[in-house]
Amino acid sequence: MSAGERSAELGVYPDELQGQVDAYLAGLSFADDDATAGLEEAMRYSVLAGGKRIRPVLALATAEALERDVGEVLPLAAALELVHTYSLIHDDLPAMDDDELRRGQPTCHVAYGEDVAILAGDGLFAEALRLVIERQVGDPAHVLAALRCLVAAAGVEGMVGGQYLDVTAPDDLDATGLRRLHERKTGRLIAASVESVLLLSGMSEPATIGYHRFAVELGVLFQIVDDILDVTGSDEALGKPQGSDERHGKRTYVSVFGLERARDLAAESHRKARAGLTEAGGRTDTLERISDYILTRRR
Amino acid sequence: MSAGERSAELGVYPDELQGQVDAYLAGLSFADDDATAGLEEAMRYSVLAGGKRIRPVLALATAEALERDVGEVLPLAAALELVHTYSLIHDDLPAMDDDELRRGQPTCHVAYGEDVAILAGDGLFAEALRLVIERQVGDPAHVLAALRCLVAAAGVEGMVGGQYLDVTAPDDLDATGLRRLHERKTGRLIAASVESVLLLSGMSEPATIGYHRFAVELGVLFQIVDDILDVTGSDEALGKPQGSDERHGKRTYVSVFGLERARDLAAESHRKARAGLTEAGGRTDTLERISDYILTRRR
Repeated sequence: MSAGERSAELGVYPDELQGQVDAYLAGLSFADDDATAGLEEAMRYSVLAGGKRIRPVLALATAEALERDVGEVLPLAAALELVHTYSLIHDDLPAMDDDELRRGQPTCHVAYGEDVAILAGDGLFAEALRLVIERQVGDPAHVLAALRCLVAAAGVEGMVGGQYLDVTAPDDLDATGLRRLHERKTGRLIAASVESVLLLSGMSEPATIGYHRFAVELGVLFQIVDDILDVTGSDEALGKPQGSDERHGKRTYVSVFGLERARDLAAESHRKARAGLTEAGGRTDTLERISDYILTRRR
Repeated sequence: MSAGERSAELGVYPDELQGQVDAYLAGLSFADDDATAGLEEAMRYSVLAGGKRIRPVLALATAEALERDVGEVLPLAAALELVHTYSLIHDDLPAMDDDELRRGQPTCHVAYGEDVAILAGDGLFAEALRLVIERQVGDPAHVLAALRCLVAAAGVEGMVGGQYLDVTAPDDLDATGLRRLHERKTGRLIAASVESVLLLSGMSEPATIGYHRFAVELGVLFQIVDDILDVTGSDEALGKPQGSDERHGKRTYVSVFGLERARDLAAESHRKARAGLTEAGGRTDTLERISDYILTRRR
């Protein structure tokens, strides 16, 4: 019975895939030397703080859609989570969003100091890439293509550029600017969670076009729902104070479009994401379920 | 006439190779989108602040030793400088060394703000890797091996771990601890400047052993001379206030061993580095000259 069959109801998260990711992440170590045990502790603290592991679970579900052994892509999947965690640590820093809580726990710089937190983020990025290079099985040209996708999603045209747009955003950021910001800040890495697995498997256009549409819309959907939950969620479910975007003066899909229109936009992105999957073909039931989960999640 | 022949005197730096690196670095751009032009400006500000480009020049000189076209390894060579620049930006941050001057100019966070400086460092790391993946010509397995070397040198067992050892170093750090700190903080990336080119060229042990000895000792030599210059150099030559290690309360080769013994240790590392080159064989005249330059440099 596949992970897909085990969670066959609409929007039920593939917990079995998440379990594989969690176990793999818990088993990672980053240095042989006790001298940097304190740095490793800060890295592991942030990586193991929980969360739904959406990026690596998407990677495993994409492997499933391609009828690959999902266990084979765990290094690449875990790397996506390490890159995501690195971005959270740096985004939370006092010079950035200055957040003290993340998933109900003190943020990395609160727990370990700002200097160690900067290095924990830097270290996680390097170790994410090392994990792919040293442990991901595959044709070297395909591993390089997957790495290119991951690194581009993390760089200036992706996550780092998106965070720059965020910290420099004007108070009256418009809908176009908002979408561009999120497409880079979170969308690219979510899309890479699907696309890097396609590249690792040696696929190229046109076979990847449907998946690409799915992945891009899923990134948009994820962010819209995140913005909605910041307004409608409880502190407990979010693991941070509800309404923190508003207190940070951030423009969100809710502040730009209003709550009802934001919900409509979420439904529209969800519909487009599902249409992309239909176009992709393959055993996409788990990917479908993840898109349903992202639309209906409460945290 | 080779770059080596042009600078045939003892300790004369291969300016021609540096010129190729400078020109390549000046031509880099990191995003197609004007929206992040401010981030790119901060990245370029730090990359183009000058310096002798020792890491990329070592990479080109290694290519020369292997009788390769040095122009072919420029993407990898430039990536080494981008990684080095990223580490300088983060090391200078208020939460780290809190330095306001670097090479005679305001540090990145002084010029662009702390948030942008953190992102400029993050961005340079990602873009360094992208440069290798997208532009470095070579057998994919060899490019991956070179990347592994670069990423390991930047990670927890290398640069990031070394900076952690630095920010957490006790006041009475001993000689062993000092050597370990520098071996990771600066030595690994300097060694990688030689070794990544060997790997890109498909070389493996035992052919690489002599080069490896050279590269490791060169890293040690570089740091000892750096510590000596912090005490004996002028502000103008250093581009930062002389004696800044002492004011930061940092343990150095000079504070641990005294100036005369530090000079002896530098001469010893230089001798071992040259012996490694003799063992390596090949057209190593430019590499020899770089090791002489590092021993005798004034800034």
